[in-house]
Amino acid sequence: FEGVPAMGLDGLGSSSYGPEAALSVLIPLGAASLSYIGWVMAPIVGLLAILFASYWQTIRAYPHNGGAYIVAKENLGSNASLLAAAALMIDYVLNVAVGISAGVGALVSAVPALHDYMLLLCLLILAFITVMNLRGTIDAGRMFAVPTYTFVISFALIIAVGVWKVLMDGGNPQPVVPPPPLAKSVEAVNVWLLLRAFAAGCTAMTGVEAVSNGMTAFRDPTVKYGHRTLTAIVGILGALLIGIAYLATVYKIGAMDQSQAGYRSVLSQLASAVVGDGPLYYVAIGSLLCVLALSANTSFVDFPRLCHVVAQDGFLPRPFAVAGHRLVFSVGILYLAMTAGALLVVFGGITDHLIPLFAVGAFATFTLSQSGMVVHWLRLLRKPAPAQERRRHRMHLAINAVGAVTTGVALIVIVVAKFVGGAWITVMIVPAVILLLKSIKHYYEKVAARTRQPSPLQVAGVEPPVVLVTIDDWNALAEKGVALALSLSPHVVGVHLAQLEGPDSEDRHKELHERWEQNVAAPCRRAGRAQPMLCILQAQYRAIHVPILKLSQELQINHPGRAIAVLIPELIKQRWYQRLLHTQHARYLRRKLLEHGGSLLTVIEVPWYLEEVQALEPRQGGAAYVNAERGNTG
Amino acid sequence: FEGVPAMGLDGLGSSSYGPEAALSVLIPLGAASLSYIGWVMAPIVGLLAILFASYWQTIRAYPHNGGAYIVAKENLGSNASLLAAAALMIDYVLNVAVGISAGVGALVSAVPALHDYMLLLCLLILAFITVMNLRGTIDAGRMFAVPTYTFVISFALIIAVGVWKVLMDGGNPQPVVPPPPLAKSVEAVNVWLLLRAFAAGCTAMTGVEAVSNGMTAFRDPTVKYGHRTLTAIVGILGALLIGIAYLATVYKIGAMDQSQAGYRSVLSQLASAVVGDGPLYYVAIGSLLCVLALSANTSFVDFPRLCHVVAQDGFLPRPFAVAGHRLVFSVGILYLAMTAGALLVVFGGITDHLIPLFAVGAFATFTLSQSGMVVHWLRLLRKPAPAQERRRHRMHLAINAVGAVTTGVALIVIVVAKFVGGAWITVMIVPAVILLLKSIKHYYEKVAARTRQPSPLQVAGVEPPVVLVTIDDWNALAEKGVALALSLSPHVVGVHLAQLEGPDSEDRHKELHERWEQNVAAPCRRAGRAQPMLCILQAQYRAIHVPILKLSQELQINHPGRAIAVLIPELIKQRWYQRLLHTQHARYLRRKLLEHGGSLLTVIEVPWYLEEVQALEPRQGGAAYVNAERGNTG
Ligand SMILES: [K+]
Ligand SMILES: [K+]
Ligand SMILES: [K+]
Ligand SMILES: [K+]
Ligand SMILES: [K+]
Ligand SMILES: [K+]
Repeated sequence: FEGVPAMGLDGLGSSSYGPEAALSVLIPLGAASLSYIGWVMAPIVGLLAILFASYWQTIRAYPHNGGAYIVAKENLGSNASLLAAAALMIDYVLNVAVGISAGVGALVSAVPALHDYMLLLCLLILAFITVMNLRGTIDAGRMFAVPTYTFVISFALIIAVGVWKVLMDGGNPQPVVPPPPLAKSVEAVNVWLLLRAFAAGCTAMTGVEAVSNGMTAFRDPTVKYGHRTLTAIVGILGALLIGIAYLATVYKIGAMDQSQAGYRSVLSQLASAVVGDGPLYYVAIGSLLCVLALSANTSFVDFPRLCHVVAQDGFLPRPFAVAGHRLVFSVGILYLAMTAGALLVVFGGITDHLIPLFAVGAFATFTLSQSGMVVHWLRLLRKPAPAQERRRHRMHLAINAVGAVTTGVALIVIVVAKFVGGAWITVMIVPAVILLLKSIKHYYEKVAARTRQPSPLQVAGVEPPVVLVTIDDWNALAEKGVALALSLSPHVVGVHLAQLEGPDSEDRHKELHERWEQNVAAPCRRAGRAQPMLCILQAQYRAIHVPILKLSQELQINHPGRAIAVLIPELIKQRWYQRLLHTQHARYLRRKLLEHGGSLLTVIEVPWYLEEVQALEPRQGGAAYVNAERGNTG
Repeated sequence: FEGVPAMGLDGLGSSSYGPEAALSVLIPLGAASLSYIGWVMAPIVGLLAILFASYWQTIRAYPHNGGAYIVAKENLGSNASLLAAAALMIDYVLNVAVGISAGVGALVSAVPALHDYMLLLCLLILAFITVMNLRGTIDAGRMFAVPTYTFVISFALIIAVGVWKVLMDGGNPQPVVPPPPLAKSVEAVNVWLLLRAFAAGCTAMTGVEAVSNGMTAFRDPTVKYGHRTLTAIVGILGALLIGIAYLATVYKIGAMDQSQAGYRSVLSQLASAVVGDGPLYYVAIGSLLCVLALSANTSFVDFPRLCHVVAQDGFLPRPFAVAGHRLVFSVGILYLAMTAGALLVVFGGITDHLIPLFAVGAFATFTLSQSGMVVHWLRLLRKPAPAQERRRHRMHLAINAVGAVTTGVALIVIVVAKFVGGAWITVMIVPAVILLLKSIKHYYEKVAARTRQPSPLQVAGVEPPVVLVTIDDWNALAEKGVALALSLSPHVVGVHLAQLEGPDSEDRHKELHERWEQNVAAPCRRAGRAQPMLCILQAQYRAIHVPILKLSQELQINHPGRAIAVLIPELIKQRWYQRLLHTQHARYLRRKLLEHGGSLLTVIEVPWYLEEVQALEPRQGGAAYVNAERGNTG
């Protein structure tokens, strides 16, 4: 049962806001709401049982990773998997916002003086989680165990004591701290109201899928441990939901408006009605706050994992697909922090206002996942197999089909019942996200199509490029550059960009021409080589690439289709102060030439070191090369 | 007289703090101080006359730019010019701090309620000047003219009225608003006190050199207009100093402590004593505030100009020498803002505490400039010339010699008299600045020595480098890279860095080898060329250059002294979203190879465009190259 804390947090935490969300919808019924909460919670617990059976199958069929994205991709194809990805991405954000706001709701129930600072507290908890995750993912199992077990044990105790008191007092127990009296009914009961309550209560099921996502964490036999953990989580969640619904009815506990001062959450009213405001009450509420904050944290762990998988399929930027790349974590964390923060601010940190947006994504992924499983079993049935196995497959098919249909119906109910209240926002964002994912994929496909190269290399008739060597002066850098250029091509041209370092004089140009003639042209003539020319071009600050581009255009008129290489000897800045003492012309020129040069232009960078670097035997990849004392060989 | 506002601001503004600084030193004498202010101001006005005569010569001898740095460099050599540069750089900062604090002193004299916020006001004015200068240099002549003329006219009026009242009332005028009574003497007069008052009062002369610095601004004949402007400025300044000293004596006005509430500056006391707190008073004080703030602004204009000249000689980073380079302005502005801001904070925005640091630099540059002029005339006298001209030169020599000696003596007096009070700070910083300038020059000389290349190029035996081509896959980028590599050298090696974009499978490596054989190796064999090898190297994220460096080390063992070129085909990111969608591996690899590769390693970057760039006919240098619609030729 080691997996229960880490994988159960998300599911168990929602027992605090699911029943409360249902009771909130029933507020207009006043005291009468208590007669109907059973009718609302019963189908929710029934649905939970169906989900349990369905995920039992998923765990068996996908013993490594049965996330909705993968199950949908393998069985329903790319579009369904993108729908699952979009739904998940949206629900991760809502899970953060709802978890934090419900946690703060529990806190202000226990400490009413903090009611004025609810939004601030939400943002502080969000900031804390964000910073912790930016420093490194929080997933120390033991850190999760203490609050989770404290939460489960204390509420199990509270429910047990409550039930025992009911039995002792003949069904009419005296609350230790009486909950506020329920208002009179202002509305008659109707099916629409009950459907809306059901839809709101379905948020209690979010997070049940965590075990199927996290199968890689289990020891062998993974399926056995996965089943055991799923059973424990669903069992506890079901017991909590039933216990809460029953005791709320008996103790006459209704939902209160979180935006009003004096608000107390349903679990807080229940705990103090049963055991009073003693130490157990504070332990229970404290552990609930931790569990809800950590359930928000699970989104921060799962979101980068989803992005990684989606990026491997090309629907998210490729850097996300690189294992261990910091970028995916940072981007994911900031995305969650900013969108969840925006939601909290817009909805004032009030759980009840966020609920209508929530669970749409979760039930969409439930439905897709179960439908995928139906296809999975159908495919197995199409293959020949022994009769006994076919019978087992048919049974599995039936279970997942029931799951797919019921979660699908629940999804429709949820979308319809919550549409005006906020689900329309979720429904609108899903296609936008899918469009974004598809256009990313489209871009990669376009690049792949353009870069495809089916034909073998043309080796005959390859002519070396014309090499332009930029020189400031006739010095060691120029000499190294021209020597390399002559080794690459018979066609070398020296280029001096005038005006770069203050005004150039006529005298300087004349001297440069003389030194070129003496040091380059004459030796080449003597060696029987083509004699490299020196061009002095006027360059304007901030457009130093323009004269080189013009020269290369002229060269291409004379040598059509001939490649041109611009060779830039560059003093490598090995010390911080060299960045201040040298201009960035080489770097700027390189960047501009690559941006604007066109496909016939190439840039060659020849490094020149003031202090020679010495390559040492690299130890374990990292900083293996250090600077030696001095001397450059040119 | 158009030059008076722009060039006179700095000099005329100091009439407000010079006499006040002298009177501040005399505070311990109490009422007796008034008997001695004449003795202190007389030599200051005398010195001003000598400076006038000296700069008259400088303007004639250097009709283009007679700044102290240039005059010292041409006549006294490099060390003297660096002393001048350091002295100027320090005085520019003090000019900002003193100008702003004196302006705020004038403001709080008129509006005593602001006295508690003096430092804040100083920093606000500094911030305003800084921001305006970062946006673009303020030197709209007309903007300077209004406050300067208003200041000169209103104080001329006040002094005239004051003198007229003295004449009418027989030397004992009734002040309209009486200045606070002077305290009793707590100290007897002594020569040391008078010398200190003289040294403090010498700050009144800072800024007189502005005309000789700004000669380029004049129309032809520049010398004539320069002389005329210098005469006007010195004449007005002298008249102001004499008038202020005289009226302070007659109206019994002493200096007050700026750090105490109820402080009123000398000019404020004088103005309200003569004309009362009417409109003229407020106009006069308002224009004084503007003049002092703008005199601080002149440092922001002059400092980058000085840096430009010093950088051309190699004593400041070379980027500063590029005409019109934004860097020099930004660096200069931030340097002035931060150091002047620090001074204002440390000295609490109190003018009197800043005065001891000031004027040391100014008098050092006066002395250097005059000494330079002495050498200039001596040199001319050494040449044969007509007797009349020799006589004229001898007279000029005499004038500048008097100037050099008197300003030199004044400098010694200033340093000694102010040493304990703060001049020691200036005296200590000067050598530090000179050291910095010299070490910058030394660095450039070291680079020049190392890059010197007196011998002609070795053309014989140049062997093309081994070219390593990085390939992700066999695609258009790889094909373009390998084709170019084969045109450059017979020795080509393909390098695939595995693990870069997620795990590579054995299958993928096998497939890559097959495609290499089919598309590269086989065509080369058929063409009778050496067959390029493909190396698959394991790369670690964040150390992708290490396997390439290792391979190049191995190649150098087999081919000692042979150059190695790493050719990196790179998809050029032409749109913003491409930066998100592609990894930065090419850029990272290029940078690391250049940093750690050593002098035998070269990097060749081959651009590949998703959308071909089309070179248009460049119009006026700038953005002449735009992206065309589509299609890459590979
Ligand atoms: K949840
Ligand atoms: K749940
Ligand atoms: K969830
Ligand atoms: K000044
Ligand atoms: K002055
Ligand atoms: K000055």
